[in-house]
Amino acid sequence: MVNATSQLQVNGDRLNESIDRLAKIGRQPNGDICRLAFTNEDLQARYRVQQWMTDAGMTVRIDAAGNLIGRYAGMNDAAPALATGSHIDTVPSGGCYDGTLGVLAGIEIVRVLRENQMRLHHPIEVIVFTDEESTMIGSRAMAGKAVLSPESYQTATGISIQEALEAIGGNWDQLTQAKRSDLAAFVELHVEQGAVLERSHKEIGVVQGVVGMHRYKVIITGQPNHAGTTPMNMRQDALIAAAHLTLAVQRIALAMPSQPVGTVGYLKVEPNAVNIVPGRVELSIDLRDLSSEVLETMMSQIRQEMETIAAQTDTQMEIEPILEVEPALASDAIQQTIAQICEEMNLSYCSLPSRAGHDAMKMARITNMGMIFVPSQEGVSHSGTEYTSPEQCVAGANVLLQALLRLDDFYRSPLPERSSPKATNRETKDFFETVPAVSRNTLSP
Amino acid sequence: MVNATSQLQVNGDRLNESIDRLAKIGRQPNGDICRLAFTNEDLQARYRVQQWMTDAGMTVRIDAAGNLIGRYAGMNDAAPALATGSHIDTVPSGGCYDGTLGVLAGIEIVRVLRENQMRLHHPIEVIVFTDEESTMIGSRAMAGKAVLSPESYQTATGISIQEALEAIGGNWDQLTQAKRSDLAAFVELHVEQGAVLERSHKEIGVVQGVVGMHRYKVIITGQPNHAGTTPMNMRQDALIAAAHLTLAVQRIALAMPSQPVGTVGYLKVEPNAVNIVPGRVELSIDLRDLSSEVLETMMSQIRQEMETIAAQTDTQMEIEPILEVEPALASDAIQQTIAQICEEMNLSYCSLPSRAGHDAMKMARITNMGMIFVPSQEGVSHSGTEYTSPEQCVAGANVLLQALLRLDDFYRSPLPERSSPKATNRETKDFFETVPAVSRNTLSP
Repeated sequence: MVNATSQLQVNGDRLNESIDRLAKIGRQPNGDICRLAFTNEDLQARYRVQQWMTDAGMTVRIDAAGNLIGRYAGMNDAAPALATGSHIDTVPSGGCYDGTLGVLAGIEIVRVLRENQMRLHHPIEVIVFTDEESTMIGSRAMAGKAVLSPESYQTATGISIQEALEAIGGNWDQLTQAKRSDLAAFVELHVEQGAVLERSHKEIGVVQGVVGMHRYKVIITGQPNHAGTTPMNMRQDALIAAAHLTLAVQRIALAMPSQPVGTVGYLKVEPNAVNIVPGRVELSIDLRDLSSEVLETMMSQIRQEMETIAAQTDTQMEIEPILEVEPALASDAIQQTIAQICEEMNLSYCSLPSRAGHDAMKMARITNMGMIFVPSQEGVSHSGTEYTSPEQCVAGANVLLQALLRLDDFYRSPLPERSSPKATNRETKDFFETVPAVSRNTLSP
Repeated sequence: MVNATSQLQVNGDRLNESIDRLAKIGRQPNGDICRLAFTNEDLQARYRVQQWMTDAGMTVRIDAAGNLIGRYAGMNDAAPALATGSHIDTVPSGGCYDGTLGVLAGIEIVRVLRENQMRLHHPIEVIVFTDEESTMIGSRAMAGKAVLSPESYQTATGISIQEALEAIGGNWDQLTQAKRSDLAAFVELHVEQGAVLERSHKEIGVVQGVVGMHRYKVIITGQPNHAGTTPMNMRQDALIAAAHLTLAVQRIALAMPSQPVGTVGYLKVEPNAVNIVPGRVELSIDLRDLSSEVLETMMSQIRQEMETIAAQTDTQMEIEPILEVEPALASDAIQQTIAQICEEMNLSYCSLPSRAGHDAMKMARITNMGMIFVPSQEGVSHSGTEYTSPEQCVAGANVLLQALLRLDDFYRSPLPERSSPKATNRETKDFFETVPAVSRNTLSP
């Protein structure tokens, strides 16, 4: 039995054919894919995916948030589900892999189980989350974190969220009912959307979690003045202060061992004229790391730098937070499982944080979460040119398959005592010491 | 005679009354003065000034460039004229002193000479230059440096330069005839438009020259990328490169002993989004100094820095010159004259460059040029709040009066051998060693 399951593989050709077929829906003349949530293209893709789910032996339902949920019954169908999935909506000029790979790999895995007449102990769910690219209402609602005021949702097409949910079979008035508390784990396969795996020549990324994000707006006030008649030592140049701060943000991020990122992406100068010393600069600071403590340490260092810079440049600096998203850590057990599978499958891998948001981030609030990354060519995503090779897609799907098989055993054992997953997101049980050799139930014909 | 002339003073009250009266023309409800060249307000002010010139005993003419020229005959009226003056047009929200002070002080000086029944050896000309604030066509044409294509002039009101000149009594078709080669010197009294005098508690500025200006456009090309998924060490951040360059420009300017200025006043980031690593930055560099050599040295240092920064940040940098104005040096003899007068009048003074453009800059191309600065409160100019006290205006006018009296003697001596003023702008004669004690002719009744 051990060999049978550990050698189980997805049908790579079939997986890649599914990816190619779905990519036809919303394809633009320039090769980009435009499949905005709630549009006809989104609906068409949902029907296609729903058909594939049904064909694979799943029962399909749509929850109040419009999430499309395919369920493959377990031996113990009352057990909490092992969930996987992602999304099939795209940005206005998206590609074939972002989201889609995770959904189609989940369906392909169920196809393989069914072909092999296998059922797991737990039910498996393949979830297509609603509108990941814009409102994230699907995973938010499933995590019980959806804001309940319709005006706070801006759909990409501009229609109201009520209308939008109605169009795909959801129901705004019952949104809270989408919340789940019956999941054993959620594991998402996704393209990296960065170049870390490619540059380090790794086939699989073991995601440590989705980074938290702190964003700030800084306003620097100096004195606009004639660039000719104002001597250098009489200036209060807001852009000089901004340049120091921009470099400080970079320096502080680079100095942190956890390799956070820190970015000044937006910067606006006033009056912004060749012959006037800049009097005012507005800029953004965006910090991301897996640890809230690191984010806070960075910000405290930046605040110290700001004081020094303001004094040195004779300017004033104000800072206000504009966004604070807490990190969502992946389950240690799931990370270890994925790493172990890579070892056994001879796939090169490394651990890395996800620095982009994903549905998994929301799911981590209600269950044990894990993510598997496969490489993005040149790190490109949100573009018709995003590319992950068929072999890379298949490798990721096979790792996901093995992960679900092993987690089926892990979560079959009585759940260990643990503090709320919301608070720590970690199992206290040491997975590899306590889980017995893999065993599997076959599906009765 | 020495005492009589060295104690000659302008009528301060009359001078300040003139300033107040002219300030009524174009005064806005908020206190700003809007007297754009070629408008009805400009015309009204010209009529008023012309009347004052006539009343002071001057003959008045308008040249092809619309320059209003009042001439107070000399004992030897065939001698080259000693010229002074400035402009009476303003920026859209200007003040009472910029330009106006120089014109009205010139007229006041002629009034005093006439009241004292004095004529100088040289004729005196008080010149109101046309449109200093925008096209500078008046002083350009008088220097023989006016471009002869009408489309290259953008008037503040948008009318064609031909129409504009026509409106004030000029004549585009005869523009080249405005060129002068019969001036002994041009001395301009002007408010500083900077805060150097005020901060160093000096009453008079002896202008060393009008700085040259080199302007460049720099384009930095990096790689726009996801601010989350792109690790710090894989970035090609155009704004990081721009920050380094901005600080390098400041550092290089500060390190030069001649105290040049260097400014990045314009900076535009693309795509300029909080969550995207900047992919492109366009910025301006503005350098000003009295020495072309210093300007070239600074630029060569900046180019070296650019190479280093581009390599360190993995970006590309292109630079192109967009403006190059050569410095215009004040005559050494005129500077020494002004300094000597300040000593004798117990006025505190210092030497400084003019870092703003003036009509005197153009006049330096055809004659010996000097400028006298008086303080601008808090360095403010081009604003209804620009302020120079009545006492400061009077002090400046008295220094101008004494300067004209002394230069009348200096230039009465046969002109010393000197290389072309265009090339060096300096007399080789040592003024204070060779000029005899001041003597003056009185006007025959």
